[in-house]
Amino acid sequence: MFKAEILGETLKDGVEALTIIVDEARVHLGKEGVYARNADPSYVAMVQFELSAKAFENYETDEEVVTLDLKKMQDILELASRTDVIKIALDENRLALSFGDLKYTIALLSPYSIKKEPKVPKVEPAAHVVITGKEFRWAVKAAGKVSDNIALGCTNTDFFMEALGDSDSMRLELSKDQLIDVSRTDGKSEEVKSLFSLEFLLEMSKAVGKASEVAIDIGKNIPLKVGFDFADGNGRVSYLLAPRIGQE
Amino acid sequence: MFKAEILGETLKDGVEALTIIVDEARVHLGKEGVYARNADPSYVAMVQFELSAKAFENYETDEEVVTLDLKKMQDILELASRTDVIKIALDENRLALSFGDLKYTIALLSPYSIKKEPKVPKVEPAAHVVITGKEFRWAVKAAGKVSDNIALGCTNTDFFMEALGDSDSMRLELSKDQLIDVSRTDGKSEEVKSLFSLEFLLEMSKAVGKASEVAIDIGKNIPLKVGFDFADGNGRVSYLLAPRIGQE
Amino acid sequence: MFKAEILGETLKDGVEALTIIVDEARVHLGKEGVYARNADPSYVAMVQFELSAKAFENYETDEEVVTLDLKKMQDILELASRTDVIKIALDENRLALSFGDLKYTIALLSPYSIKKEPKVPKVEPAAHVVITGKEFRWAVKAAGKVSDNIALGCTNTDFFMEALGDSDSMRLELSKDQLIDVSRTDGKSEEVKSLFSLEFLLEMSKAVGKASEVAIDIGKNIPLKVGFDFADGNGRVSYLLAPRIGQE
Repeated sequence: MFKAEILGETLKDGVEALTIIVDEARVHLGKEGVYARNADPSYVAMVQFELSAKAFENYETDEEVVTLDLKKMQDILELASRTDVIKIALDENRLALSFGDLKYTIALLSPYSIKKEPKVPKVEPAAHVVITGKEFRWAVKAAGKVSDNIALGCTNTDFFMEALGDSDSMRLELSKDQLIDVSRTDGKSEEVKSLFSLEFLLEMSKAVGKASEVAIDIGKNIPLKVGFDFADGNGRVSYLLAPRIGQE
Repeated sequence: MFKAEILGETLKDGVEALTIIVDEARVHLGKEGVYARNADPSYVAMVQFELSAKAFENYETDEEVVTLDLKKMQDILELASRTDVIKIALDENRLALSFGDLKYTIALLSPYSIKKEPKVPKVEPAAHVVITGKEFRWAVKAAGKVSDNIALGCTNTDFFMEALGDSDSMRLELSKDQLIDVSRTDGKSEEVKSLFSLEFLLEMSKAVGKASEVAIDIGKNIPLKVGFDFADGNGRVSYLLAPRIGQE
Repeated sequence: MFKAEILGETLKDGVEALTIIVDEARVHLGKEGVYARNADPSYVAMVQFELSAKAFENYETDEEVVTLDLKKMQDILELASRTDVIKIALDENRLALSFGDLKYTIALLSPYSIKKEPKVPKVEPAAHVVITGKEFRWAVKAAGKVSDNIALGCTNTDFFMEALGDSDSMRLELSKDQLIDVSRTDGKSEEVKSLFSLEFLLEMSKAVGKASEVAIDIGKNIPLKVGFDFADGNGRVSYLLAPRIGQE
């Protein structure tokens, strides 16, 4: 059993954050709220998703686990406005979504149709940076002009993005006073950086771009972690992205 | 001989209403006004079109019948503003369109290049519904999320659209107080519905969507009739759409 | 050595004007300013470009000649706002572009990768017309509805564009009072016209469309010259377009 009511805005943003990484997701409908952990088919990127029961107008559950067709949900939710209250209900193997005069019933997917839940790798980042979502999105776009790979790095006081193409290069540098926060968590001060796929960063920046604050954890050739709140602080999304090898 | 002047708005809307069903149309330029009846190449849909001579700024004719390349006219009319007065004249086998500093001359098509005028089937609908064009357009879009077929139906007091996909379904229900009008013309009260192709309904909703009032006549497995006024009530467009078989 | 600072607006407009004709351009960085003369690969169209050193915020040069990848520059300049001051510097075989927190370095092209500078043909036009860029753009678009060729012509007092398709035609006529200026430079009064490729005129109209005044020199079966100022009168772009043969 699962019955809930949720603001269009929250459901739209939540579904979008997941679709950045996966088209179909295993989602836990727990007593405390909804949570999910899904890896993209190539296991290069992962999303961790939490949405507290407090984010819902109403929330009743028997601890269900469902496999959702996120792309179909997103397509249907295009018709809902951000201020609509959307009713969600589990009904055997179907999910009912109702808003306005409309009622949709969509099939749940087989739990065997998608990959197992990935393990979250243990990472000890060297630096922690906080910037606006808008700045993050802009920087990723700027890097994409010259290369398919972007390095994200940090000195003691500066955060930077670098892209090296075959013949061209780009560097964006943001110093302490242009950032919401920057700190070294490893107690060191020499430059650290890791190289990532532009493709995934571009996808992530779609969801990240709306957040007022984005937390970025970086180190030397380790996975990148990009996290942000949504649903007025009642939801949290974290993306993990494996580094590429090949640049020092 | 045919010479007329007409507001850009009226000519644009009229041509668009016809292009929903056909790219080329046989059009009568009669003493009372312009009228046309054309079926789409598959004979699934038909348009009936009337535009009174009153809708024109000037109107002189010798009862001509012409075959028009509507797509070319629509392309040219993109350059005219809705407030332009457009001069139309027949000149041998050509149609002249003038507005602003521009003069276009386009060839008439051979009357043998298109299908004969279709007969209008006699239909006795079971219910008559009036809704806004905007609501009609929105409902068709909503149904398209899950299926290529839409059922339109009526009970005694409610109008509904239903779409049944392979695994998903959608239902939109509008009750008496959400409709401009709903009435049973067969004196009965049990539910009636017919199934239609989404593709044609989507096309129709482009022209229908602008109308303030849309009249819908429906019954049990009979053609759908969708009618609306334009040109301040001096024009009328009716679409007839054959039902699909396969759903009870 | 070349070091300069320039307003985003000026650099964007200048690069765009060149890309109408070529993707890669040989550009002279002279003491008095920047100039270039490049033909399209088919030698049907040519651009002459001048931008005075006065148009720059700062300008220092050792008389360099560079071959630029204009498409890449245009792509990067999308990120600059029109009010940004952009720093440009030559650094060995690379061009550095800096604005905001961003620094791009792009490779210069080999001078052997593009065609030689074209000679400017001597042309004695029969008429000189001045219209707004907006009107020029609109007229070219209107002609494109019926044909891939447009004739531009002039009588004693009128400027006209004509398009003759296989079955359709278009004529746009602008008389003396609708033009900024019209005069016969050959002292004659009979109609002259030349036929041109729509494709090139459409491309040109993108850059021309922003100019408040566009000077057009036309004659009988001779190249068309279309010129306009930019950068507050400190820059000038002229396009030359060879006529097509086949229409009297």
